[in-house]
Amino acid sequence: MEKVQIPGIIEINNASTRIKPYLHFTPVLKSSSIDEIAGCNLFFKCENFQKAGVFKARGAINAVFSLDEKELANGVATHSSGNHAAALSFAAALRNTKAYIVMPSNANKVKIKAVQNYGGIITYCEPTLKAREETLAKIIAKTNAIEIHPYNDERVIAGQATACKELVGQIDGLQIMMAPVGGGGLLSGTALSSHYYGTDINVIAGEPTGADDAFRSFYTKSFHPSVSPNTIADGLLTSLGSITFEIILKYVHTILIVDDSEIVKAMRLIWERMKIIVEPSSAVPLAAVLKNKEIFAGKKVGIIISGGNVDLNSLPF
Amino acid sequence: MEKVQIPGIIEINNASTRIKPYLHFTPVLKSSSIDEIAGCNLFFKCENFQKAGVFKARGAINAVFSLDEKELANGVATHSSGNHAAALSFAAALRNTKAYIVMPSNANKVKIKAVQNYGGIITYCEPTLKAREETLAKIIAKTNAIEIHPYNDERVIAGQATACKELVGQIDGLQIMMAPVGGGGLLSGTALSSHYYGTDINVIAGEPTGADDAFRSFYTKSFHPSVSPNTIADGLLTSLGSITFEIILKYVHTILIVDDSEIVKAMRLIWERMKIIVEPSSAVPLAAVLKNKEIFAGKKVGIIISGGNVDLNSLPF
Repeated sequence: MEKVQIPGIIEINNASTRIKPYLHFTPVLKSSSIDEIAGCNLFFKCENFQKAGVFKARGAINAVFSLDEKELANGVATHSSGNHAAALSFAAALRNTKAYIVMPSNANKVKIKAVQNYGGIITYCEPTLKAREETLAKIIAKTNAIEIHPYNDERVIAGQATACKELVGQIDGLQIMMAPVGGGGLLSGTALSSHYYGTDINVIAGEPTGADDAFRSFYTKSFHPSVSPNTIADGLLTSLGSITFEIILKYVHTILIVDDSEIVKAMRLIWERMKIIVEPSSAVPLAAVLKNKEIFAGKKVGIIISGGNVDLNSLPF
Repeated sequence: MEKVQIPGIIEINNASTRIKPYLHFTPVLKSSSIDEIAGCNLFFKCENFQKAGVFKARGAINAVFSLDEKELANGVATHSSGNHAAALSFAAALRNTKAYIVMPSNANKVKIKAVQNYGGIITYCEPTLKAREETLAKIIAKTNAIEIHPYNDERVIAGQATACKELVGQIDGLQIMMAPVGGGGLLSGTALSSHYYGTDINVIAGEPTGADDAFRSFYTKSFHPSVSPNTIADGLLTSLGSITFEIILKYVHTILIVDDSEIVKAMRLIWERMKIIVEPSSAVPLAAVLKNKEIFAGKKVGIIISGGNVDLNSLPF
């Protein structure tokens, strides 16, 4: 097992090789009408088409496949209300080991079902961070399973970094690279791959105003947790981790914030013009582009579309 | 200008070359979870990602670019309530000529706007076939514009055929090829390309029960018009044309009918599992697969996803 704090180019190369047999190499789409509205040249890397509808399996598979048989003997464990839980269950099933998942009692039923479909073993707890961490600690004490954190884990970050690595290989000469930021797994991986594989790529994150802890942490250079976040972008509620924060401080150039009405407008634009289903979190970077056109004018801009898991019965439009 | 009744392989090759600079080479997507549900191996050719969100520009551009400067001097004309109107306006603009579009007074506002955006010159009429044909005849008498029929035109059919030609080139060994059927432009083009470029491909169409004129025409081998069609698949309301019917009789193997609830179910499945936006008409072939699994069991099946133009404010789920 590799022991690195900040993944290097070798770890990301290895992650690409490891995950390749199990995941989709997702396409890059563009829309001339959105380009016209935005005033720049946008390339969307469609991780909404990834297995389970989200980039998360990249990190989970890389983490699980970084472990040897002996390390995996007692299974893996995490607490998660959503996509990481399903991704880790999927990865564990591929290695014939167990995935112990702590989920809050109010977790989305669709997401619970996804975990069950992949064979994850669910323990429910109160919907607080404290209860989640305590329940997970008990399960690990009992099972000796290895914890795989959803984002503050170098193997997970190296896995998430492969989406941007692919995009840099698919489109020449990108000048700006964008991702949304929640816990920072996708953003820090995106920043690393932009640095290792690109040429002078500016890394710009989008974050909801209602969950702007990364924005405040980044510009004050001191960690601010996410307290009572309130945004439609339900994938971006968590705080940064120690590793992701360090990478973001070092390799991200700008964080832009956008409010929910801007996110919904950008989301609808993507649905209508590109004919793809993206979740609110995925529309945050485009919302930031539309709000700050002067930064992007005439540039070649890559955007990682993080996922497409939305409930069709409760759309925001 | 080529004068052919049924387009040959040369006409379709020429169409591919003609339209290439102006249109997207659309990707083929697949979904392992839909494959599992369907019990076969499905490949979706995503014409919902095509310019203007639908395959129609293939035929319109091929038709307009088949004409020389002199023939184009007085413009082109058609009557259409929807996508062909926008596609023809787009094609005419590319050749710096006029597009005279007769639209029913109750046409969808989004579609009217699309025609206007491309510079189409609209004349409104009563929403009956008779009024549409009479108004168009008057405009052609006055302008000497050349009529481009939405589907019963060999140049349009050759253009629509290029989608299936691409798909056959993208995926080896397809055994069944599917398209929805309305006027039959897409279906007859798909059948021709399956015949010319594929090896023993069975061509199977899907049609709504509420607009089953092609089904009845095909199995009785005599033309039945579409009278008072009633289906959610609003792209499939029209009758076959003389040319499309002839091609369908000769090159299509089976037509399967599905009711609206089956169409909506298949549409939702595509949205949820594939994360792409497709209109009801596009979901008709998958609905036919799910209803007739024994026909498709274990086969490699290509499906032309015809378009993605839906009103997000009035979804059927």
